[in-house]
Amino acid sequence: MRDLALALLAAWLSLAAGVVSAADPLPSWNAGPAKQRIVDFVAAVTDPSGKHFVAPADRIAVFDNDGTLWSEQPMYFQLAFALDRVKALAPRHPEWKAKQPFKAALEGDMKTLAASGEHGLLEIVAATHAGLTTDEFAAVVKDWLATARHPRFGRRYTELTFAPMVELLGYLRANGFETWIVSGGGVEFLRAFAAEAYGIPPQQVVGSSLELKYELRGGRPVLVQQPKVAFIDDKAGKPVGIQKAIGKRPIAAFGNSDGDFEMLEWTTSAPDARLGLLVHHDDAAREYAYDRTSPFGKLARGLDEAATRGWVVVSMKDDWRAIHAPR
Amino acid sequence: MRDLALALLAAWLSLAAGVVSAADPLPSWNAGPAKQRIVDFVAAVTDPSGKHFVAPADRIAVFDNDGTLWSEQPMYFQLAFALDRVKALAPRHPEWKAKQPFKAALEGDMKTLAASGEHGLLEIVAATHAGLTTDEFAAVVKDWLATARHPRFGRRYTELTFAPMVELLGYLRANGFETWIVSGGGVEFLRAFAAEAYGIPPQQVVGSSLELKYELRGGRPVLVQQPKVAFIDDKAGKPVGIQKAIGKRPIAAFGNSDGDFEMLEWTTSAPDARLGLLVHHDDAAREYAYDRTSPFGKLARGLDEAATRGWVVVSMKDDWRAIHAPR
Repeated sequence: MRDLALALLAAWLSLAAGVVSAADPLPSWNAGPAKQRIVDFVAAVTDPSGKHFVAPADRIAVFDNDGTLWSEQPMYFQLAFALDRVKALAPRHPEWKAKQPFKAALEGDMKTLAASGEHGLLEIVAATHAGLTTDEFAAVVKDWLATARHPRFGRRYTELTFAPMVELLGYLRANGFETWIVSGGGVEFLRAFAAEAYGIPPQQVVGSSLELKYELRGGRPVLVQQPKVAFIDDKAGKPVGIQKAIGKRPIAAFGNSDGDFEMLEWTTSAPDARLGLLVHHDDAAREYAYDRTSPFGKLARGLDEAATRGWVVVSMKDDWRAIHAPR
Repeated sequence: MRDLALALLAAWLSLAAGVVSAADPLPSWNAGPAKQRIVDFVAAVTDPSGKHFVAPADRIAVFDNDGTLWSEQPMYFQLAFALDRVKALAPRHPEWKAKQPFKAALEGDMKTLAASGEHGLLEIVAATHAGLTTDEFAAVVKDWLATARHPRFGRRYTELTFAPMVELLGYLRANGFETWIVSGGGVEFLRAFAAEAYGIPPQQVVGSSLELKYELRGGRPVLVQQPKVAFIDDKAGKPVGIQKAIGKRPIAAFGNSDGDFEMLEWTTSAPDARLGLLVHHDDAAREYAYDRTSPFGKLARGLDEAATRGWVVVSMKDDWRAIHAPR
């Protein structure tokens, strides 16, 4: 009887092991070349006997946020936040009624607002984010995220993260990766939700930033956001932001726009196994379809050069079983 | 027999547990109030049933480097590196023979060099560090650390880390802390040795920095150090550097000079259990004795206010059994 019990136990254990190894680590991804490239890459860098093995300490993966981890249409979510802030602060700024780009923001005149360009948008961000301490700003962002709704989906913005990408973050971490956000968005805005939405702690968020000033208020120290941009973490700024914060070159980079081009180039130009991936928004039915001409998340050079550079292009329509988390 | 065996096993297990809990986690520290404060603090924040419990994710400890984790006399070690670089690069810069502060550096005229002030020293750092890619710079620093010797101790600079502090770093990490360097020194200089010397990975090093530029050299991307200071991580810059990189307030801060004052103030001004600690260099026999008048590592306000603020002042002479690692 004892031998039989042991034999049954052994059979059950090997069966259970087989089930575990056969379990799909990325169930929100349809079978296909994109998913296969991800799984093959992870298998290669985690196989201690393989020639592409990478020690856990060097398994750094970097993710753009807008359009890569969550949606970015009809405008960057942080811009929607800033426009709501303009409205909330307008009573204290009567001069905004006659002053661009604030006038356009108050009137919902998106065309004039867009025409004000990066400079106009930065002016709005500076005016609506500055003067607050880092703690105050985090509270304001959290309040907004708890109540604001996306105009098309009617859901809270943090419900519009991409289920396949959140799954991918977890899959990489389960394989010893450190997962980082490297975003053109504001670092303090991102930190207000990154831990809950993505499992990414504040110290693994790299983003654009305003200058901070250390001062005493009522005898207690605070850090106050200044109306001056300290760093723009976009395009060629992304490898710079990566080096400043992480100090080593990532082995995997995930983006969706030409703002991510240099980050993918920097990551994949090393001779060893590297993964570069672009999310292509081609699903108008479930999300949005845009690339070369979009004011937000323009993707042109990346599409042109992805094949030559060996980057994976993910079709949201074909490769993703789900887009956002189910309701 | 079976019951006796179990009883013996239980007795042995409780004995072993007793030995483990009685083992001294900080053998390089002499018994005394400083050591006791550290051990009590760690016990308080790691006790899940205590009122001062801090979740592991929030156990952030920040350490100054020069004078806190390794020696800083007769000059900051990075300054010794920069002066050696001036000599190495002098053949390519004949103009330096007639131009201050380079002339003083080449002639070993420390008085004139010191008189050139922070501006002069930054000029030397910019001239000797800029133009190199981050990879090239790391290699140059590692070469220098492998060969250069301290003028008094005759040892390599990385052998002049403080054994009690390296021990403390390990003790905190064993208790779930993330240990960070927050130094006025250059971030890329620190990263070249922090992992090996302290067990601190590049992404947990905050320091002063030069601007970086992303560019292609021979078709391959590189990050090139520019002759322009991007950030000075000293004094009120330390809380700013902490927020930029970590995004949350530390619960323990370790320093040795007035350059660390705001970092300790920021860390210890929260209402919960916090630890602020200053290393006081009072051991001329084994290391150096200096504080209020030293050009490097001046400590005056910290000494004056430590008691009021509840900060621990460590006497290297009395509290440390060893200073540097044994030969």
